[in-house]
Amino acid sequence: MRDDMIMAALNELNSSSADIEASAVISTDGLVLSAILPQTMDEDRVGAMAAAMLSLGDRTASELARGNLEQVLIKGSAGYVLMMYAGENTVVSVVTNASAKLGLIFLDVKRSAEAISKLV
Amino acid sequence: MRDDMIMAALNELNSSSADIEASAVISTDGLVLSAILPQTMDEDRVGAMAAAMLSLGDRTASELARGNLEQVLIKGSAGYVLMMYAGENTVVSVVTNASAKLGLIFLDVKRSAEAISKLV
Repeated sequence: MRDDMIMAALNELNSSSADIEASAVISTDGLVLSAILPQTMDEDRVGAMAAAMLSLGDRTASELARGNLEQVLIKGSAGYVLMMYAGENTVVSVVTNASAKLGLIFLDVKRSAEAISKLV
Repeated sequence: MRDDMIMAALNELNSSSADIEASAVISTDGLVLSAILPQTMDEDRVGAMAAAMLSLGDRTASELARGNLEQVLIKGSAGYVLMMYAGENTVVSVVTNASAKLGLIFLDVKRSAEAISKLV
């Protein structure tokens, strides 16, 4: 039931923009709770990379006195990876292509993270 | 001479917004080439965190098929840390407070990175 609601929120996020290629709800220790991924993308790999980025992002925010970590964004030549906290121990992560409009993606992921934070 | 020009570009960046608390030009292996930092922020620590984030950002971009790493952004409750490539082995990094307007910061850092990429 709760799983279905998380998946529904993720479905809504994933369909909010054609630029979103993958989306997932991941615990901060790297376990994937729910995911919509293309066949080429491995769930465990997505979880592991998210956990590593969140751990180092947390350390960076702390070392440079930026408070509690809220988001990590990676921009590559072929697109973005965005992780946003949804509650204390969970993040919503999306992987987009390079033509994604960052402002819109932030908005969609934020809305989704707020909904999901009430479910986890 | 080249050092002076890098420092001038960094000065221009640092004064472009009151929300920028620190800025630095850092090699991808963590050596600080030039920096404008508050006394509370240690140069070696900034370099070390940047190198670690770039290394993991690179790995993430590659594992999730996002091409070559261009930027890493960390958002904390007290502000942002942004790293943007300026040439192949150098990044421009800024640390801002929480009221920074992200669009403006991206624009300013991008301009600065373009200028600095011609100097390194």
